[in-house]
This record gives sequence, C-alpha cells and structure tokens, in this order.
Amino acid sequence: MRLTKQTNYAVRMLMYCAANEGQLSRIPEIARAYGVSELFLFKILQPLNKAGLVETVRGRNGGVRLGKPATEISLFDVVKVTEDSFAMAECFEDGAIECPLVDSCGLNSALRKALNAFFDVLTEYSIDDLVKARPQINFLLGLTGEHDYRKPAVPAPAA
Amino acid sequence: MRLTKQTNYAVRMLMYCAANEGQLSRIPEIARAYGVSELFLFKILQPLNKAGLVETVRGRNGGVRLGKPATEISLFDVVKVTEDSFAMAECFEDGAIECPLVDSCGLNSALRKALNAFFDVLTEYSIDDLVKARPQINFLLGLTGEHDYRKPAVPAPAA
Repeated sequence: MRLTKQTNYAVRMLMYCAANEGQLSRIPEIARAYGVSELFLFKILQPLNKAGLVETVRGRNGGVRLGKPATEISLFDVVKVTEDSFAMAECFEDGAIECPLVDSCGLNSALRKALNAFFDVLTEYSIDDLVKARPQINFLLGLTGEHDYRKPAVPAPAA
Repeated sequence: MRLTKQTNYAVRMLMYCAANEGQLSRIPEIARAYGVSELFLFKILQPLNKAGLVETVRGRNGGVRLGKPATEISLFDVVKVTEDSFAMAECFEDGAIECPLVDSCGLNSALRKALNAFFDVLTEYSIDDLVKARPQINFLLGLTGEHDYRKPAVPAPAA
C-alpha cells in the first residue's frame, strides 16, 4: 500500500508554494529544490490547477501560486486529485468481479471504514500544517533564507 | 492506493477455512470456489502458516485449517503478513532519500497517523466478522449448504 508519486510530488509543490507565499514560484526552481523532474511537476500542475489548489500565471515573469490559503488545502484535497483510484481490492470496482462473495461482503465494508479513517486524518492536516512543522523550510528549499515562511522577505506582487 | 493481490486472496482463503470450520480445506477447492489460481494460493500459504494464521496437514487427506479461532484473526494480522511494505511515500524509506525536507517532515507524520487510523479499523475486524456478514457463505463457496457456518455438518476430525 503506497501513495502515488503524483501525490508525493503534488504535496511537495504545494509546500514549496506555501513557503514561497506572496511570490510566484517557477517549476524549474521547485524541481531543482527537490531534485525531481520538471516534466513530472508540469504534469501534476494541470489537475491541481483544475481543482483550484494552484493558480498559474503565464508569461516571462509567470509562475505558480496556491489557489487558496495553505490553511484551507487539506492533504485529503490533494489525494483526491492525485490518486487514480481508492479501489483497495477487486470488490471495490465496477464491472466483472469474479469473487462469489462480492455483494455486501464484510471485507469490502471493513476496508471502506478503514479507508475513511485514513481520509479523516488526512482531512485534519493542511498544507500550512506541513510547512509549519518545518521551521527552516525556506532555507531547506533554497528560498529567501531562514525567516518565518509567513513573512515574505519581499512584498507580494500586485495581483 | 491499493492492497496487494496477496492480501485479497489471503483474506478469501481464511474466510473459506472459517466457513469450512471443523474440516480441512483443500487448495484446489478454495481456488475453484473463488475462480483464482491454485499456485497463487499455495504461495500465500507459506507466510500465513509461518505467522500461525493457518495450519497445514500433509498427505492424501491433508489440507489447511485456521491456526487459531476466526474470532482471533484480525484483518490487521493478515495485512501485516501479506503487504510487502507500508512505505506510503519516499520519506518512509531507509537509505538515500532526495527530498531536502525528509527529517521530521510534517507529511511523514501525517501519513503515519493516517495509516495508524487505517490499521486501527482493520484490527477491529476479525475473519469471523467477515464470514458472519455473509449468512449464505457456505452456499456461495460451494460448501455444505446454507447452514450456520459455526455448526459444521460433520464433526471435526480428531487433532
């Protein structure tokens, strides 16, 4: 049981944007900070944008920023976008299922309940919580030094 | 996010043995009941046996039975045996990790907490619960008819 690479990288990108609050973040810089592929980050950008979790600004001085405050983006909001499927077992799927026990099987309902407990915890955590948990995040990501991420070193650009 | 095929088939095999309580179950019969590969079931048998969840009896009239009462085998006991890894993200792993935020990252602890909530629910469900949830399980598995699975049609063989 493992989350997809998409989820992992989406969370990292959102954490970067949160740490770089008030600025536009550029994909090549995010890719460099985490040592990951630019192409992969570009691919995740589209579904995150569609879900309103990020906004992109085109052009030479363009970039990406959070689509809403970091306090209002939960980890569950992210996995809903980036996980292809929460079909934990064959019996979660539509269509042809070979198991003779499929209808109202106890396994299916137990797994659903467990998955909901998992989601409930993810709903409790916002991108802001993750960033707050790393006091030196700006420094670690090669951003503008070791300051509080909530106080950008330079003023936010006009919208 | 998905459980492995091993988990899915291990649970089904244990449910079969629970439904066939007091009898030895044969792998070819279990495979036929679920329409799955015998070889695959044989492969799962070894780790389940090692973990004490099943007992195997060799010989012409041999077979497999639960290693302890169905009420005492939780779904968590099963996934501990059959899931290769609960490393939900790169930062759960030992060894070379490229993410600069790896130490005490908020994501890692949020995912651990979510995973524990998932396990807590699985711990609440026993194989017995799953089988009870299917009143017609013996019939559906081609066993000895539509009786209560707790009352075997024939007496248990001597140990």
